[in-house]
Amino acid sequence: MSSWYDNCGFDNEIVISTRIRLARNLSSLPFPSIMTAEQNEQLKQKVKEAIAGSNTPFAKTLKYIDMSAVPKNEINAMVERHIISPEFSKKAEGKALVISDDESISIMIGEEDHIRIQIILGGLQLEKAYAIIEQLDSILDASLHFAFDENLGYLTECPTNLGTGLRASVMMHLPISERTGEISRISENVSKIGFTVRGTYGEGTKAAASLYQISNQVTLGISEKNALDNLKIIATGILEKEKAAREGLDKITLEDSVFRTLGTLKNARILNSDEMIGLLSMIKLGTSMGILNREINPIKLLIEEKPYMLMKKHGEVSPSERDILRAADIREALKEF
Amino acid sequence: MSSWYDNCGFDNEIVISTRIRLARNLSSLPFPSIMTAEQNEQLKQKVKEAIAGSNTPFAKTLKYIDMSAVPKNEINAMVERHIISPEFSKKAEGKALVISDDESISIMIGEEDHIRIQIILGGLQLEKAYAIIEQLDSILDASLHFAFDENLGYLTECPTNLGTGLRASVMMHLPISERTGEISRISENVSKIGFTVRGTYGEGTKAAASLYQISNQVTLGISEKNALDNLKIIATGILEKEKAAREGLDKITLEDSVFRTLGTLKNARILNSDEMIGLLSMIKLGTSMGILNREINPIKLLIEEKPYMLMKKHGEVSPSERDILRAADIREALKEF
Repeated sequence: MSSWYDNCGFDNEIVISTRIRLARNLSSLPFPSIMTAEQNEQLKQKVKEAIAGSNTPFAKTLKYIDMSAVPKNEINAMVERHIISPEFSKKAEGKALVISDDESISIMIGEEDHIRIQIILGGLQLEKAYAIIEQLDSILDASLHFAFDENLGYLTECPTNLGTGLRASVMMHLPISERTGEISRISENVSKIGFTVRGTYGEGTKAAASLYQISNQVTLGISEKNALDNLKIIATGILEKEKAAREGLDKITLEDSVFRTLGTLKNARILNSDEMIGLLSMIKLGTSMGILNREINPIKLLIEEKPYMLMKKHGEVSPSERDILRAADIREALKEF
Repeated sequence: MSSWYDNCGFDNEIVISTRIRLARNLSSLPFPSIMTAEQNEQLKQKVKEAIAGSNTPFAKTLKYIDMSAVPKNEINAMVERHIISPEFSKKAEGKALVISDDESISIMIGEEDHIRIQIILGGLQLEKAYAIIEQLDSILDASLHFAFDENLGYLTECPTNLGTGLRASVMMHLPISERTGEISRISENVSKIGFTVRGTYGEGTKAAASLYQISNQVTLGISEKNALDNLKIIATGILEKEKAAREGLDKITLEDSVFRTLGTLKNARILNSDEMIGLLSMIKLGTSMGILNREINPIKLLIEEKPYMLMKKHGEVSPSERDILRAADIREALKEF
């Protein structure tokens, strides 16, 4: 079964992924924070039936999962694959999740809001992601009747989501903008127009992944289309800046760094998660710039070798055993390159 | 043409090489520091004739080289191969050198003393080295008549060489004794009995080679045999300590370090001499301990990729070009491993 990260970066080497989520609540039930156990059961039942009853081919591809039946390690692995939020994972007992086969679509039932719909796709695909989420939103709204106010828009548990309830983000790989300090300037500028730039993975450690998430903060008084258009313009601008900065790199110095990193990954016997992230970031730069074979997918490796994802494959092991297995997995994955 | 370092370490993984030198002076001429140009010519002529006239098969394998005819870069490369001293290289103009095909035998004419005979062999071979140097000493003494005093022994320019005029040393690879601090203790102990331990290559830099030279300091009031026997006992003791310390290493951690280092050397595009030395030291530990293929000869690489040795192969190039060529040479040398 292919995942969103199987294809990330092939069509777009700097934008890794696109994510959109909608926050929705049923007008017939109180917000999750004050729901009774019985109301929680009703909520899950209603969502399950809404999907089963929609009779669209699209809805038939979705699978309903009772989170109480999912082992703790697999729940953590879902967080690592970005298909559920860390918050949802911590209170998963009694909750439910709807996902598509490739996990690009996920619906958390009973997160902060009754429903959190998420679409995650590889590369920069805001239009496609929005088309899917809009369709799903309509299917669900037809039977669930989402709480909506003419002035405020969609009603949400937290006021910061009022309005469109839409949060869109793109994850970008920006090693050179990071090195030049351009990231800080970008972050400052976009915050003035309602967007944020946030580092993901290993930020604050020496071996950062240079992965940044750019997302809209404003959901009120703005249309979905406007929010997405603005995000696309911002992401494209950042992308062009990163590309231009890469052009200025010294070729042999860059090749040296990239190949040394490949050498380390192809030979290490012990590899912790933090170090792996930093090394794979350099590999990503190498594949993007055509120095390394583009069939290497460092983002896929990065996700599949996270602690719980690794234990899905190898069973419950200690952190030090994980570091040894991780090194072996990565040597195997890279042996042909 | 094979060199002393072609076979170093195959029979003995910790002792890299054995070196013996004899300081000798002709009673018929003043010491080099006060010789006239004419006397210098006489000295060279006498040594040349002593070898040519000895009529032994052994002496016939030796080649007389007029140092004035040797390009400066090649003179520096000779220092890098350890066949002449740095001091001799700096005042080589007008001097002469006698060497064997494999360069294991070299005779500097007009270094600090009239004659400095050196034997350098791979591994721990004190007896063999002494047998060769003794034979050569006899051949030369037969016609040159070395200055000798019944009480003081062989007379030398510097009083520290009076007596036997013999300095014997073994170069040992001691990465673990270095790491544990054992080296300092050894150094302190052997100094009390007239021996010194000195780091070679990159000491003081972070990327030391962990190569140490253990040599006798006392030449007066002691026989050649005693000096060599003591050195052998000391070297064997240090070797056993290093071996024992290696037994205690964590296998996977060591493998991780060794293979990462191999990965770096097989992939780097820029490699300066200091870094190379540190990396090859780890490779040497890897080959010694059977982690890497023993056909890798890191000491040979270390010598052949020194700046002037590298320029022997690639011509006169800048330091930054050297670092690129060095990386390429080493990738090529290690590609099968």
